[in-house]
Amino acid sequence: MKVARPIAALIESFQKLPGVGPKSAQRLTYYLLHVPQNELDDFSDNISKLKKDTVSCSVCKNVNETDPCSICSDSGRDHSLIMVVEAPLDVVAFERTGKFRGLYHVLHGAINPLENIGPDEIFVQELLNRVKGEDHGIEEIIIATNPTMEGEATSMYLTKQLKIKDSNLKITRLGMGIPTGADLEYADETTLSRAIEGRREL
Amino acid sequence: MKVARPIAALIESFQKLPGVGPKSAQRLTYYLLHVPQNELDDFSDNISKLKKDTVSCSVCKNVNETDPCSICSDSGRDHSLIMVVEAPLDVVAFERTGKFRGLYHVLHGAINPLENIGPDEIFVQELLNRVKGEDHGIEEIIIATNPTMEGEATSMYLTKQLKIKDSNLKITRLGMGIPTGADLEYADETTLSRAIEGRREL
Repeated sequence: MKVARPIAALIESFQKLPGVGPKSAQRLTYYLLHVPQNELDDFSDNISKLKKDTVSCSVCKNVNETDPCSICSDSGRDHSLIMVVEAPLDVVAFERTGKFRGLYHVLHGAINPLENIGPDEIFVQELLNRVKGEDHGIEEIIIATNPTMEGEATSMYLTKQLKIKDSNLKITRLGMGIPTGADLEYADETTLSRAIEGRREL
Repeated sequence: MKVARPIAALIESFQKLPGVGPKSAQRLTYYLLHVPQNELDDFSDNISKLKKDTVSCSVCKNVNETDPCSICSDSGRDHSLIMVVEAPLDVVAFERTGKFRGLYHVLHGAINPLENIGPDEIFVQELLNRVKGEDHGIEEIIIATNPTMEGEATSMYLTKQLKIKDSNLKITRLGMGIPTGADLEYADETTLSRAIEGRREL
């Protein structure tokens, strides 16, 4: 194949991205050939600066510009409430709802024995350290890991460990049930069972 | 939304790419946060160098590292045969077959009156210049524009103009018919009509 080296190199870079196959990588690369150089320079800068200009918040482990992050250092938020999520994108999703005014804790993964990811590979100890001591001021921990095998295993493990640290701590799990806009007919049994268990009085 | 600025900037850059929506742009950006800095630097370099390290071949208008490009300057190829395509990616596709040993001409578009793209906006004149003069040595031009309205219009226009330049020039159009692996039942009428017209004796 006689593809110019700069083109082949960029195709290869794009192919390393998740969900980008050889054909899409080609299409994206040839598309960029028609984009003005200053836009390419911006794109290039944004990639190289992505990690240089961000830090992991020492409190919640979310990725941010400052340490502690803008959420952890916001005195207007409820510091007695912590939502535990698997990934930074989950924080983005919850922030978009505008319904949550507490803090977060990002685990950066979930317990997954099949892939050798145990509690030590994710930020579990850092969460336990946050509720350590007598006067930690935390009243409730909402476990918002994904409703997958790994997320549920992580949820169970966290509940057990948190209860050991502080038996009075309120630990909740995100409500499970039918998502908005779904068709009951196509919902699986587990989702329907969870929806029945989680029914609310009107 | 409290997303760190470097993250928001990269999400925006990804969103400008064709076929990348806000969700995919987010996913790609957060994925890159877990990639080592040296790989990010490579990716970044490949983008900023893409256009700086490539040139448009003055003969065939394909994008390459050298001028004339590696195909046009290859004496092992058949210089009497030119395949006219719409885009550089089409060259890549034909080269992958390994069945074509002639040269190419990349139009960089197709005639499309609805979008104000006429023959002057694409490299038509450059193609005509290649067959100009008595001793141009070109025997056949294969028109390989897409089988779309625009591609067909371009094909008709090119045929007319090329015949004016040199009435003895052999001008052919890519064979049309059923693609390999397709199901006859689902083929549209135009494709089937073309397949009947283009039938071959066994």
